Amino acid sequence: MQTAALVQRFSRIYRDCPKLSKLLVVCSVGGVSLVTYSVATSSQQPEVLNKKKVVVLGTGWAATNFLKNLNDPSYDVRVVSPRNYFAFTPLLPSVTSGTVESRSITEPIRNIIRKKNVEMHYSEAECVKIDAKNKKVYCRSDMNKNSDGKEEFDMDYDYLVIAIGACVNTFNIPGVQEHTYFLKEVEDAQRLRKAVIESFEKASLPNLSDEERKKLLHFVIVGGGPTGVEFAAQLHDFVSSEAARLYPEVKNFVKITLVEATDHILNMFAKRITAFAEEKFKKDGIDVKTGSMVVKVSDKEITTKDAKTGEITSTPYGTVVWSTGIGIRLVIIDFMKDIGQGNRRVLATDEWLRVEGCDNVYAIGDTASISWRKVMDDIAAIFRKADKDNSGTLTVKEFQDVLADICERYPQVELYLKNKHMRGLVDLLKEEKGGDVKEPLEINIEEFKSALSKVDSQMKTLPPTAQVASQEGVYLANCFNRMAECEKNPEGPIRFRGEGRHRFHPFRYNHRGQFAPLGGEQTAAQLPGDWVSIGHVPQALWYSAYASMQVSWRTRTLVMSDWIRRFFFGRDSSQL
Amino acid sequence: MQTAALVQRFSRIYRDCPKLSKLLVVCSVGGVSLVTYSVATSSQQPEVLNKKKVVVLGTGWAATNFLKNLNDPSYDVRVVSPRNYFAFTPLLPSVTSGTVESRSITEPIRNIIRKKNVEMHYSEAECVKIDAKNKKVYCRSDMNKNSDGKEEFDMDYDYLVIAIGACVNTFNIPGVQEHTYFLKEVEDAQRLRKAVIESFEKASLPNLSDEERKKLLHFVIVGGGPTGVEFAAQLHDFVSSEAARLYPEVKNFVKITLVEATDHILNMFAKRITAFAEEKFKKDGIDVKTGSMVVKVSDKEITTKDAKTGEITSTPYGTVVWSTGIGIRLVIIDFMKDIGQGNRRVLATDEWLRVEGCDNVYAIGDTASISWRKVMDDIAAIFRKADKDNSGTLTVKEFQDVLADICERYPQVELYLKNKHMRGLVDLLKEEKGGDVKEPLEINIEEFKSALSKVDSQMKTLPPTAQVASQEGVYLANCFNRMAECEKNPEGPIRFRGEGRHRFHPFRYNHRGQFAPLGGEQTAAQLPGDWVSIGHVPQALWYSAYASMQVSWRTRTLVMSDWIRRFFFGRDSSQL
Repeated sequence: MQTAALVQRFSRIYRDCPKLSKLLVVCSVGGVSLVTYSVATSSQQPEVLNKKKVVVLGTGWAATNFLKNLNDPSYDVRVVSPRNYFAFTPLLPSVTSGTVESRSITEPIRNIIRKKNVEMHYSEAECVKIDAKNKKVYCRSDMNKNSDGKEEFDMDYDYLVIAIGACVNTFNIPGVQEHTYFLKEVEDAQRLRKAVIESFEKASLPNLSDEERKKLLHFVIVGGGPTGVEFAAQLHDFVSSEAARLYPEVKNFVKITLVEATDHILNMFAKRITAFAEEKFKKDGIDVKTGSMVVKVSDKEITTKDAKTGEITSTPYGTVVWSTGIGIRLVIIDFMKDIGQGNRRVLATDEWLRVEGCDNVYAIGDTASISWRKVMDDIAAIFRKADKDNSGTLTVKEFQDVLADICERYPQVELYLKNKHMRGLVDLLKEEKGGDVKEPLEINIEEFKSALSKVDSQMKTLPPTAQVASQEGVYLANCFNRMAECEKNPEGPIRFRGEGRHRFHPFRYNHRGQFAPLGGEQTAAQLPGDWVSIGHVPQALWYSAYASMQVSWRTRTLVMSDWIRRFFFGRDSSQL
Repeated sequence: MQTAALVQRFSRIYRDCPKLSKLLVVCSVGGVSLVTYSVATSSQQPEVLNKKKVVVLGTGWAATNFLKNLNDPSYDVRVVSPRNYFAFTPLLPSVTSGTVESRSITEPIRNIIRKKNVEMHYSEAECVKIDAKNKKVYCRSDMNKNSDGKEEFDMDYDYLVIAIGACVNTFNIPGVQEHTYFLKEVEDAQRLRKAVIESFEKASLPNLSDEERKKLLHFVIVGGGPTGVEFAAQLHDFVSSEAARLYPEVKNFVKITLVEATDHILNMFAKRITAFAEEKFKKDGIDVKTGSMVVKVSDKEITTKDAKTGEITSTPYGTVVWSTGIGIRLVIIDFMKDIGQGNRRVLATDEWLRVEGCDNVYAIGDTASISWRKVMDDIAAIFRKADKDNSGTLTVKEFQDVLADICERYPQVELYLKNKHMRGLVDLLKEEKGGDVKEPLEINIEEFKSALSKVDSQMKTLPPTAQVASQEGVYLANCFNRMAECEKNPEGPIRFRGEGRHRFHPFRYNHRGQFAPLGGEQTAAQLPGDWVSIGHVPQALWYSAYASMQVSWRTRTLVMSDWIRRFFFGRDSSQL
């Protein structure tokens, strides 16, 4: 045992600090064979036969946070993703304008998993089929060179974590896939950056008419969400600083149009922010076309339809950026059909992030949506469980006993009470009984139903944001870490439709606020408690929040040095 | 006049420091209209009708140094290049391994030319035809999107500077163009970096045999020049540090082979350096195959032929990097045919970098090669010119009078004397006359010929390096700057075949030494005077030389911060 421990320690030192151990090798003549042995074995960890095999699909926000937080060494984790790095996607609009470099916002997934005490292996491949019946996933490596037909392989799992994100939703509008630029992946941002510079170079060629220059420098952004708005702002900043300096002869031909189907841009934000953003864009000369739906994109023109008048307009463009929303990936559509979710619009999980209708399959991030249970569906079961003495009526005492469990299981109850400014469910019941309440308060099932009838209106689907995805990843990792422990001592709420308690607390999203950078070093921030702030202070907050949220010290340093670099040297306009 | 000067000053301040001038605008209410006027006119410089139009093709070392050093405002300069940036090519091998980022070694050409007092315009296009007869170049923009058939345009010139560099020479070996990676442009380095990471990812997939992993991780570098050697060294460094950490399960399958057709790698360096490099690579496990010529590259195998035995070997490979030498671009081949240089191997210029057989066309950098004049071709003319009294013999006095001019016009004379350890030509003449020299020394033409007969053996073509290209660019810019002045007061050597003096001193290359980084923070340096040094000291020298040679403070800062970043965080292995 002593020798084995020594070997292990040596092996760890060697992995962590190869230079030091090389020195050790030279110095300690007697230990040479020992160290050699440890080095030879260090890469092959002893196989524990009963390790549960966890297959994780994806390397985005959800998957990476799951992997970072998983620390129970009894799992054997296989990560499969076509992207061998994690990307800090909220900075993608900054990459398009060259404010931040693409490599500054990426961290190789191998760097993240190799530091773990859990056995983790990564394969660069795309999952093409999930076979939940046989607990298998089929993967394909999309590297076509020198493939020898060996691109496909399959993997067994005990637990499957699906975190492959979503794809761009083109709404099947003709020409979108072919002629527009997306802003979903790092490569998209690189392509878009190149396209912007190319537009300026092309417009500067000597043989063009002014009309052609105008067309080339017409940038259309479709989608007034945070990404589209931030890209428009970044583009405007680039145009008014670097481009104005480097392309003075064509800067006056630039036009930026932001097309939004609804009545306002940034409509998930407070009205004050929306109004400020629209006003600022107007001042900046960005043409905001709200209530305008894109119906077609050809290679030269983009066609929109006014939502009110129905009027169809075609405008020549140079570059169209498509940033409207997300759609489901093909592999998920097939999977949903297989597991009986074929008629749903998005893959559904329960509050524990388990895919409905599937054992041991979890889905986190943009891939899935939590399908919250309605109180009204379970109302009879809840009443029965609370009514311990089977009297047909609930006393306040009986009610208090299950109150916490109800609130935990159905978060909409808490939200409803909060909106009604009530301290607890008892207030709600009292209101139901009318002003004159005789103590002890008792209510029957009909009154109970009536009191809770409007609660479900507060149910919300979570937005497809990095924040939600990462919280889901952390939550699921913690569940996995305490799987064995919670199996014995369940810690979740009472099972209303069964015996005992749920193993875990359900997932609860904790909204930490949202930023909308508007260019010119101004940002709108909406923080929890609907605290709204706009201007330079939230911009500073944005800088510090985004720096602190970086996944590694490497990316943190790089992103910050990119900001400093931009301050001193501006954005780079090399067409790379 | 006063107002005009004020306007100009305002305009300059505005361009140099927009923020300050914005403040000024706000403060000085009275000056608003003045400033507005100046801003409006600042981008449209007054047209000087008699400005000579200089068209510069290229944005590489030669062109950029020409543009940076040109400062006579009487020229109107048009720059045409498909690459809108200057790239610090000696760092390309560093880009392939991620030691330095690609954007850190590029500087937008517009950034360089906008700071000039000379009117300069840039067009992103490729020159497809040079019509020297009509003083016109035809250009094509290769941006195909939204082109409307307007990709072609032409440009008139008074002076043409060709600096488009060379292309990769595949020697028409089958499969090279299709299956190998080049290391000529920044995009090549990016592609190669991606390919290296892809090889490691691919080899780490679960379903491969060891044989397949070995094949995928077999990197073959063809060409043992400084670029090939540096790439091999960088790749080895990457494999033994980052790859060993991130891909522990496949690191033992890696093999690096360096194929060189001649007997030694780095054969332009001193023997000591070659020997050290070969020894170091042997220790590092890099397989150096000298005397081995590539005859074919298929999609799976590379076939070589042993120069001595004639034996043919085929080896499976994952990645082949082609770094053997340079060839002529198509547009130059056509141009050479047009101007009667069709039977030459490379575009020839005279010592003033003027293309032979063409008026007002200059060629600098790798595009052309200086065709030095032979002393023996001009020997009769030289003798005639020196023999001022037409006596048929040369006295020492007569000889001394033209000595400097001969040495300047025929640099091989100086080199020859240096190699023979003679102080001057007089020593050479004395030697020719034998030991017993009677004063005053006089020699006839036959003796003169005989003395100089071996001088031409010292003629050297300049290597296609960044150093030569940039010195040619600087030289030519200085000629352009003093064109008018030197027209009146020629400063060059005596015209032996004509009257008066040449306008300019001929171009003279000043070799400042050469580095060959060998990996592991070791570099071989060969400095002027054949001072050779190998190890960590030249590596430090390499760092400081390459930092100081950067074209802007921006790239200097970025390159240095990349080095620091690599020191702390290693190289990034995201497949981007």
